[in-house]
Amino acid sequence: MTKWVYNFNGNSTDGDQTQKDLLGGKGANLAQMSALGLAVPEGFTVSTEACIDYYKNDQKINDDIRSQVESSLKLVEQITGKTFGGQSNPLLFSVRSGARVSMPGMMDTVLNLGMNDKTVEAMASKTGNARFAWDSYRRFIQMFSNVVLGLNTSILEAQLEDLKEARNYESDTDLSAEDLQELVHVYKQVLMEEFGKTFPQDPMDQLWAAIGAVFSSWNNPRAIKYRQMNGFSDDWGTAVNIQSMVFGNTGDTSATGVCFTRDPSTGEKQFFGEYLINAQGEDVVAGIRTPAPINETSKNDSNKNLRTLKEELPEAYDELVEVYQKLEAHYKDMQDIEFTIEDKKLYILQTRTGKRTINAALKIAVDLTNEGVINKEEALLRIRPEDLDKLLHPRLDPKADKELLAKGLPASPGASCGQIVFTSEDAANWVNAGKKVLLVRQETSPEDIGGMHVSDGILTARGGMTSHAAVVARGMGKPCVAGCSALEIDEHNKKLVIGEKTFNEGDHLTFDGGTGEIFNGIVPTIKASISDNFEIFMSWADEVKRLKVRTNADNPEDSEVARKFGAQGIGLCRTEHMFFDSERILAVREMIFASSSEDRAIAIAKLLPFQREDFKGIFTAMNGLPVNIRLLDPPLHEFLPHKDEEYAELAQSLNVDKAVIYKRKDELHEFNPMLGHRGCRLGVTFPEIYNMQVRAIIEAAIEVSAKGVDVQPEIMIPLIASNNELAILKKNAQGVIADVFKEKGTEVKHKIGTMLELPRACITAGEIANTADFFSFGTNDLTQTTFGLSRDDSGKFLPFYTQKEIFKRDPFVSIDQDGVGFLVAHAVKEGKKNNPDIHCGICGEHGGESASIEFCHKVGLDYVSCSPFRVPVARLAAARAQILHG
Amino acid sequence: MTKWVYNFNGNSTDGDQTQKDLLGGKGANLAQMSALGLAVPEGFTVSTEACIDYYKNDQKINDDIRSQVESSLKLVEQITGKTFGGQSNPLLFSVRSGARVSMPGMMDTVLNLGMNDKTVEAMASKTGNARFAWDSYRRFIQMFSNVVLGLNTSILEAQLEDLKEARNYESDTDLSAEDLQELVHVYKQVLMEEFGKTFPQDPMDQLWAAIGAVFSSWNNPRAIKYRQMNGFSDDWGTAVNIQSMVFGNTGDTSATGVCFTRDPSTGEKQFFGEYLINAQGEDVVAGIRTPAPINETSKNDSNKNLRTLKEELPEAYDELVEVYQKLEAHYKDMQDIEFTIEDKKLYILQTRTGKRTINAALKIAVDLTNEGVINKEEALLRIRPEDLDKLLHPRLDPKADKELLAKGLPASPGASCGQIVFTSEDAANWVNAGKKVLLVRQETSPEDIGGMHVSDGILTARGGMTSHAAVVARGMGKPCVAGCSALEIDEHNKKLVIGEKTFNEGDHLTFDGGTGEIFNGIVPTIKASISDNFEIFMSWADEVKRLKVRTNADNPEDSEVARKFGAQGIGLCRTEHMFFDSERILAVREMIFASSSEDRAIAIAKLLPFQREDFKGIFTAMNGLPVNIRLLDPPLHEFLPHKDEEYAELAQSLNVDKAVIYKRKDELHEFNPMLGHRGCRLGVTFPEIYNMQVRAIIEAAIEVSAKGVDVQPEIMIPLIASNNELAILKKNAQGVIADVFKEKGTEVKHKIGTMLELPRACITAGEIANTADFFSFGTNDLTQTTFGLSRDDSGKFLPFYTQKEIFKRDPFVSIDQDGVGFLVAHAVKEGKKNNPDIHCGICGEHGGESASIEFCHKVGLDYVSCSPFRVPVARLAAARAQILHG
Repeated sequence: MTKWVYNFNGNSTDGDQTQKDLLGGKGANLAQMSALGLAVPEGFTVSTEACIDYYKNDQKINDDIRSQVESSLKLVEQITGKTFGGQSNPLLFSVRSGARVSMPGMMDTVLNLGMNDKTVEAMASKTGNARFAWDSYRRFIQMFSNVVLGLNTSILEAQLEDLKEARNYESDTDLSAEDLQELVHVYKQVLMEEFGKTFPQDPMDQLWAAIGAVFSSWNNPRAIKYRQMNGFSDDWGTAVNIQSMVFGNTGDTSATGVCFTRDPSTGEKQFFGEYLINAQGEDVVAGIRTPAPINETSKNDSNKNLRTLKEELPEAYDELVEVYQKLEAHYKDMQDIEFTIEDKKLYILQTRTGKRTINAALKIAVDLTNEGVINKEEALLRIRPEDLDKLLHPRLDPKADKELLAKGLPASPGASCGQIVFTSEDAANWVNAGKKVLLVRQETSPEDIGGMHVSDGILTARGGMTSHAAVVARGMGKPCVAGCSALEIDEHNKKLVIGEKTFNEGDHLTFDGGTGEIFNGIVPTIKASISDNFEIFMSWADEVKRLKVRTNADNPEDSEVARKFGAQGIGLCRTEHMFFDSERILAVREMIFASSSEDRAIAIAKLLPFQREDFKGIFTAMNGLPVNIRLLDPPLHEFLPHKDEEYAELAQSLNVDKAVIYKRKDELHEFNPMLGHRGCRLGVTFPEIYNMQVRAIIEAAIEVSAKGVDVQPEIMIPLIASNNELAILKKNAQGVIADVFKEKGTEVKHKIGTMLELPRACITAGEIANTADFFSFGTNDLTQTTFGLSRDDSGKFLPFYTQKEIFKRDPFVSIDQDGVGFLVAHAVKEGKKNNPDIHCGICGEHGGESASIEFCHKVGLDYVSCSPFRVPVARLAAARAQILHG
Repeated sequence: MTKWVYNFNGNSTDGDQTQKDLLGGKGANLAQMSALGLAVPEGFTVSTEACIDYYKNDQKINDDIRSQVESSLKLVEQITGKTFGGQSNPLLFSVRSGARVSMPGMMDTVLNLGMNDKTVEAMASKTGNARFAWDSYRRFIQMFSNVVLGLNTSILEAQLEDLKEARNYESDTDLSAEDLQELVHVYKQVLMEEFGKTFPQDPMDQLWAAIGAVFSSWNNPRAIKYRQMNGFSDDWGTAVNIQSMVFGNTGDTSATGVCFTRDPSTGEKQFFGEYLINAQGEDVVAGIRTPAPINETSKNDSNKNLRTLKEELPEAYDELVEVYQKLEAHYKDMQDIEFTIEDKKLYILQTRTGKRTINAALKIAVDLTNEGVINKEEALLRIRPEDLDKLLHPRLDPKADKELLAKGLPASPGASCGQIVFTSEDAANWVNAGKKVLLVRQETSPEDIGGMHVSDGILTARGGMTSHAAVVARGMGKPCVAGCSALEIDEHNKKLVIGEKTFNEGDHLTFDGGTGEIFNGIVPTIKASISDNFEIFMSWADEVKRLKVRTNADNPEDSEVARKFGAQGIGLCRTEHMFFDSERILAVREMIFASSSEDRAIAIAKLLPFQREDFKGIFTAMNGLPVNIRLLDPPLHEFLPHKDEEYAELAQSLNVDKAVIYKRKDELHEFNPMLGHRGCRLGVTFPEIYNMQVRAIIEAAIEVSAKGVDVQPEIMIPLIASNNELAILKKNAQGVIADVFKEKGTEVKHKIGTMLELPRACITAGEIANTADFFSFGTNDLTQTTFGLSRDDSGKFLPFYTQKEIFKRDPFVSIDQDGVGFLVAHAVKEGKKNNPDIHCGICGEHGGESASIEFCHKVGLDYVSCSPFRVPVARLAAARAQILHG
């Protein structure tokens, strides 16, 4: 005969935590706690198979199931000495649904099942608290009517409100036992009118109805939708957990409380909790009575004069100590335990892994490892990589008052407070005058780099998670909220309007780049601090991980920061970020506006020394580690002047008429610059630019190498669509390198590879691998082209798309594994087939996001590269990927 | 012993046309002609294997090869009765290289090898023409010195010029036999100075040197580069063809000529040719003597009084008739035959498939099929699909004088002549005044549709082969040259500057859209005409082809044209082309600027009747055939006003301030509109637009269906990146359709599918196939995103790329099979796996290009769709693909 029902009680327990498929998640946990010998209130679980049978059987509970339920119920009665429907010591049940995974839309809990006109009296005399008994009864009727019978809650709530109004009561607690008794009477009348029959008084009728309701809730529309969205099978079914109720309010030898096996805010190893004598669980939370400390270590200013549980009920406390040790040992993690003591008997209602602060989480993980409870791998799985971010940035004081003004995209984490300015020039001036400023821009452009550098934070009205502001701010580790469309910026008049409020230059704002929230005025912030536990923990991640973690950095300062955070090289150095410096931009513009190859060469020659110095600094900072330098990538018009006087200056410097310059500007216009004349296309058509950059790299490498620095330059050619482009540019580069070697009489090791950032490059990667020493996936641009989606323009619909789950996640934040990921995996496979030595990494923004890093690990990349402040996140994500996927 | 040398002569021939790998292309053909029993001048071929051996053997000709060459040479002497180096009847040879495929860079032909100071005298007496003998000798020395010895030609040419100057001669023909004899003397002195030894007098020395030079030329840089570019193996080697010389100038029983087995300009089945008595081949081309007709049918006005070959040398003529019949029967195609008669003996020097006009080609293919020489499949392979285009468009009179001004992209074929205008409004006005105009624009936009429609041709300065002008012009079948950067257009002053010339409004220009050439003034054109043979031939294509051919058409007129050209449905009807009509554009703009969903609905409701009428017209024109209608695709800002008065009108109509309109315009700005808020993204965020379009389609279908029209609407949702988008929009559409069915009390069959034009859609096509009834590959946009290449901006580097063969072909012209093609093939495979009934087609511009159509056939598409005038090309290409690939 099929076993449909599984008992859990002090005498015998039929299941354990491994049987989630059969008993559901909750049922398996109850069985496990019971199997550990903990005093879980007795009960039984009707299996998921019974649910499946219910649907096969025309939504009827078959006789086998019924008889097994009845047997189990009898067993509970025997063990507890209580009787279901009994008139002296009545047995009451809670009934809960429980599928193998938690699933929104399933039936809510029904408490106190078994109450009726008779058992309510028995409860009243047992607890000596008639008000409690009648309140429990009316709550049960209300819950059962709604959850099992499907009645709209408001119908009974209205009766409650009417009564309160009639009695002139302000709160539910004003209701007396008699009031509640009257309310039960009214409820029953209403139900008679609604359903044409009396509220079920027979506890067994209540039980069968509740079990059937749980089974039916498996197929309610919300549950079905949730399963569809998550790809869960409709065939799983749900279990039903039927557990006896215990009461902490039966007198002064009863109590209820909550405890933690370690301190959830610091992680200290000390048993810690609160309780109330003669109370139900909800009283602890309600805040009417001050909960007492369970022991000396749990005392604080507000409860230090109250008696501890250890003093009041020492046996129960000692048992609780045994329990918490057993639970932590079993679950190998800090537990959050709910308990009730009924007539001195301790019951464990629930245990779960306790929530904690990130600092506590680190300490607990490190301590548990040192205690030998878990190993390093398990410790590493205990911390969400993204949570580390909170450690590295200032945060808002959680106790401070805040007035939320608007919310934008959480573009770069950290809290920031300062006086607003509207231009990069103003930012520099204000900072020189000793102020802390926030730069507020419609959107930033490469020319704002200087202003961003001096500001304490950046706010923009446009652009997404990979907009210029977001990418650069993350790179600098500066807080940023991007694309906040509520910001109406009037740059000309230096005014910012948010809703009804207007802010002028110099007004204070505060924001949290980790949440995207912008607050009025000054909100106090707390500085970042890194603990020893952090260093220990991260060293374990490094021991475990296979993926290397590099950083995206364009200057020696960022390189050093990243190295301190554990970066193992530079994965992306964007040469063009160096072009905007005021000393060089004129030469860059001369290069762009040159009318002949010769003139272009002259302008380019002016840039060479600057670039060489840049690279020397970066090579020195990264001594002993690889440095991947991308040759010029953006379209030339990004470097064009914006102001008429700049055009005039340029015209003078080139000795041509200003009209000539403006004409050339028009010629450079592109309808879709992202898909235009940029990257290697510039390299192919104007070889002088790349030749200069390659020369600067190699000359720099030779110079610092002579001073004993171990240089490992990697030259990266961007935007390849065809191997022919790479072959031409590699040959050009090799020519320049050979020249430099000859001139200098010495050589340095170097690699030449390419950035795969176009679908065609990924598709034809097998061929490209014959030419390239390495592949670096530029997943920002690859996402744009694979989706046909400009990150700069996506603000008009992408938020709507992610909100409606048309795209599960913003593909610029977490790599799109089905689309972009397919191309990456294909390229790695085909590339390694033709060139087993090819080195593969990722340098898009995804390189710092944990789900993307896990994907990179799985498809066999050699490294990820991310902004300096994301390096710890990436190290941990890489370690976790190794642990989870080998 | 290895056979290194293969004879061809009247007695025995060792090879045939199948042995190209061993004998090279030329050698195999000579062997084949000889094997057919034709009097090919006797000779032999040194095999490609001998070449390979030559390289293995340190660039020496081994003794086996030498002895086989000597044997074969003896055989030729025996058969011809001539002696190599002989002093009475000398045997002379031509020496030619010949690899398995024709390869630029290989050695040029050396004629008259075997001449020396003695044989020259023998030739003089044999031909009775000392001047000819000495001229042949000095030419041989010159050729041999250059081709075999590697001497720069100019060194000997200079001597020739000096002599002419000294003698005061104007032309080479002024040189006497004595002059030439002197020149030979001078040549030999020069060579002595250059090489330090005498010019080789021993014919065998000449022969070995020539064979070695042919072998060496296999590895000259140009040949190596050519092989690399084409992926040809370096291991193939080249053969050497050594063939005895014959002379048509040995007296009045000798002659030389050219004949065709059918008339190459009309295709008429009549033997046709010209000849000269006592002449060499070059004399026929030189034009000094008027060649005579070979027979009565070859007579024309200029040669009708000359005696025919049939009359002069009847036996040779009769033999030639036999030969031509044998050759045409063997090669099964019209042949272009070169012959020489030496002392009444006919020699066939060469036969090849004759060039012909497209009209002749059609007639010959149809006639040969009717004669039973070839079958229909073979006939279909005889015509290049692209050549059909010439039949459908007017062309320039080939005899007319032309002054070429500039060359742009051949965007839409056909010749056109007219007066230039610079705006669409002017075009309309001038045409109303009875003029023929050419519309000259920087680039066209959708607002120019009206102007393009009335113009005779379109010229643009910007944009590529798939620019707006190009696509629309091809759709209209109107000649167009696009992206001609030599055009400097001053629209404001209505001036066009090309180089030094300035043209004003009303000036005449002529251009050829098939070549991209623009000519000064009026050049006469010839109208298009379609022959019966065309209809017969195309019916055979339809019998054979598997792929269906649809057309891209947006209105009833184009639909009807396409149907006449054999279109089997509409593959792409772009609804937005209808939005620019002056009656509707205001409603479109009201829709865009609506501030609420309600206002938007009001504007959209105004558009509904227009759209419905459009669709009724198209459905009626395509009665019985499927009509695929794409819902709105471009970004909304394409429909924005350009002029301030239009903004004012719009503001008034919407009853808002003009500033509001301008602000909204700024909000609509996109950095990369191609990757912006367009296509299904508009459909998802503003569902009202698509709902209106679906309603218009279904209401139109029901209305015309009631009148007996067989309607087969297909609703196409563009720019899908994720199946979720399609699922939402399909559901919306089905809701509207259900409403319309209910309102009208009737239903029509319809399909809902999607345009695959983004890499991600192709990658995830398996999933999308579960939702879509059909896939239509939008390969224009797919090419843009796969390459990360904007077609509008590619003009700055794409021409350079194709010229340098970085991209073998413009990927917007011929589908990129490795990249874009990979995605198409993947999508078809994955789509059909999940939904075997899914119908797949292509609607990008590639649908009318023959290599792309062949690819579409191979990957299993069901149809291609192209502009109306490309339909015949596509039909033929589809048939050829079926024949070649089954």
